[in-house]
Amino acid sequence: MKHFSELRRQFIQATVAVSLLFALPAWAADALPSWRDGPTKQAIIKFVISVTDTNAKTYVKPDDRIAVFDNDGTLWSEQPFYFQLYFMADQVRAAAPKHPEWQDLPEFKALMARDIPALMKIGVKPVLELLAVANSGMTTAEYDKAIDDWLFFSRHPRFNRPYTDLAYQPMKELLRYLEMNFFKNFIVSGGGVEFMRVWSQKVYDIPPERVIGTVGGVKFEEKDGKPVLIKLPKMEFLDDGPGKPVGIYRSIGCQPIFAFGNSDGDLQMLQWTAAGKGLRFMGLVHHTDEKREWAYDRTSHIGKLDKALDAALANGWTVVDMKKDWAKVYAFD
Amino acid sequence: MKHFSELRRQFIQATVAVSLLFALPAWAADALPSWRDGPTKQAIIKFVISVTDTNAKTYVKPDDRIAVFDNDGTLWSEQPFYFQLYFMADQVRAAAPKHPEWQDLPEFKALMARDIPALMKIGVKPVLELLAVANSGMTTAEYDKAIDDWLFFSRHPRFNRPYTDLAYQPMKELLRYLEMNFFKNFIVSGGGVEFMRVWSQKVYDIPPERVIGTVGGVKFEEKDGKPVLIKLPKMEFLDDGPGKPVGIYRSIGCQPIFAFGNSDGDLQMLQWTAAGKGLRFMGLVHHTDEKREWAYDRTSHIGKLDKALDAALANGWTVVDMKKDWAKVYAFD
Repeated sequence: MKHFSELRRQFIQATVAVSLLFALPAWAADALPSWRDGPTKQAIIKFVISVTDTNAKTYVKPDDRIAVFDNDGTLWSEQPFYFQLYFMADQVRAAAPKHPEWQDLPEFKALMARDIPALMKIGVKPVLELLAVANSGMTTAEYDKAIDDWLFFSRHPRFNRPYTDLAYQPMKELLRYLEMNFFKNFIVSGGGVEFMRVWSQKVYDIPPERVIGTVGGVKFEEKDGKPVLIKLPKMEFLDDGPGKPVGIYRSIGCQPIFAFGNSDGDLQMLQWTAAGKGLRFMGLVHHTDEKREWAYDRTSHIGKLDKALDAALANGWTVVDMKKDWAKVYAFD
Repeated sequence: MKHFSELRRQFIQATVAVSLLFALPAWAADALPSWRDGPTKQAIIKFVISVTDTNAKTYVKPDDRIAVFDNDGTLWSEQPFYFQLYFMADQVRAAAPKHPEWQDLPEFKALMARDIPALMKIGVKPVLELLAVANSGMTTAEYDKAIDDWLFFSRHPRFNRPYTDLAYQPMKELLRYLEMNFFKNFIVSGGGVEFMRVWSQKVYDIPPERVIGTVGGVKFEEKDGKPVLIKLPKMEFLDDGPGKPVGIYRSIGCQPIFAFGNSDGDLQMLQWTAAGKGLRFMGLVHHTDEKREWAYDRTSHIGKLDKALDAALANGWTVVDMKKDWAKVYAFD
């Protein structure tokens, strides 16, 4: 079986290589057109060549080419606030009539007023718990549909476009470039796993089983004679900070060789990636472009990049200067 | 991006099809040589043709071809006791000198004596908790190595062979047949996820990220200046019975179209698979061969098959009669 599977892989690899050389010459010429030439782009390409060259000492088998990406601020924007929060606010508002006890909660008032400084002061946990209560009792199918509908109808306040339009074009190209080199791409995000899985395939070509995130409780039961999964009013796993390597271990079971983040919440994921044997790539998206996107780092309430930036500078990790390195930020630019 | 990815998929599909027709005619002639001709084999082939024929109303896109398999008793044997238990016993024995408080615990005494009736009476939870304590403080790398070493040196008491030799040859062919038809195969087992992931790629060609199982707690920390994951003395998620659809939802995020189990612990997974829209395949391995393997079902302490068998008969699910349907049980037969 192993022999056959290896044969097949080599065959596929060969035919894809041939198709790249002949059928898609423009694509092969530059797999990363939205990245400007410079040390950042070169670092990415050099790494990919080093781990895919079968004659190099740095060669890594396709099975072990695990790449992990944070989502908010790394694959799409996260300003003026994590996009999932807008969805949450709408869900909580819809459930509010059934929960008169919420009226006096500071997290409820802040969420309804979209009062971001107040929300940051309260912290993310009470807000996530409020959402868990708001959605408890829904079936997972109903919840998926609520997310799908919301994404279809809602618009980003600054760009007046669907939120999924705010995925970064250079990162989409990077995902595709890695995939063509037989990497397996995963999202490892502090956001809710259900929220991302609904659109990750369409936007990033990352299938739902490769999305790792914060997990809410669900329960299997019969409803009207049909088996369903019902959402419970509790959060079971917070996939952020030191939770990210834990989430990677639980779901992937091996150490990534490539990791990209943008904030201190990604530091442990980057450290865990760096701790593996052999060649590793650690990258950070530094938000430096207030015209096309936003500019923020060490003192930001959202996506604070302070300790992770120090670690990157100290350890020679790759830092993307969005303004300088990206010819395009969004596909619509 | 989607367009390109689809093109590539079609191209790969076409070239694989061509290679099957010309380069591997013997394989193409019968992808399931260890399955005897009859209604069971025909039901599998008919299902696969129905969901892969692009002109059929029953066609399912490759992304949605999710297949889930229980492990113990479905993909490999589970007698005289779940193989993981032998590993556990060795781990607990090694840790015993550090835990004098265990001497009076009934689960410890039963495990050391390999007293299966006593263990069954105590139940699986105290035993799993004992193991969690035995391994707590180990790094995940040390734990993986302990499993790997144990598998290499230990032998099955009846066959005097490595445990991994007791994977069922017909099921390995089925996994390969589904994979060639662009299914994604997952293991969904009550066993510990770490225990299975170490060998699932080698034995089943199922990569670690497609193994779903019972999850123990781990914690990210620095040890001698290096980031590590340390095992905690607690079980975080039991992937059995109604936990299986929950595990599928957490890790895969969509409903399978194909599920195989062998015991009442798989009933909810099969019900959850059956509850999806469109054509579905639900299968059970019925242990009917006491000569080549074992024969047990409704009254067995291990792999009890009672309610799930009733459900299969009532709903027309496929039941494999091991004695009749399998020309070979193990590759070494």
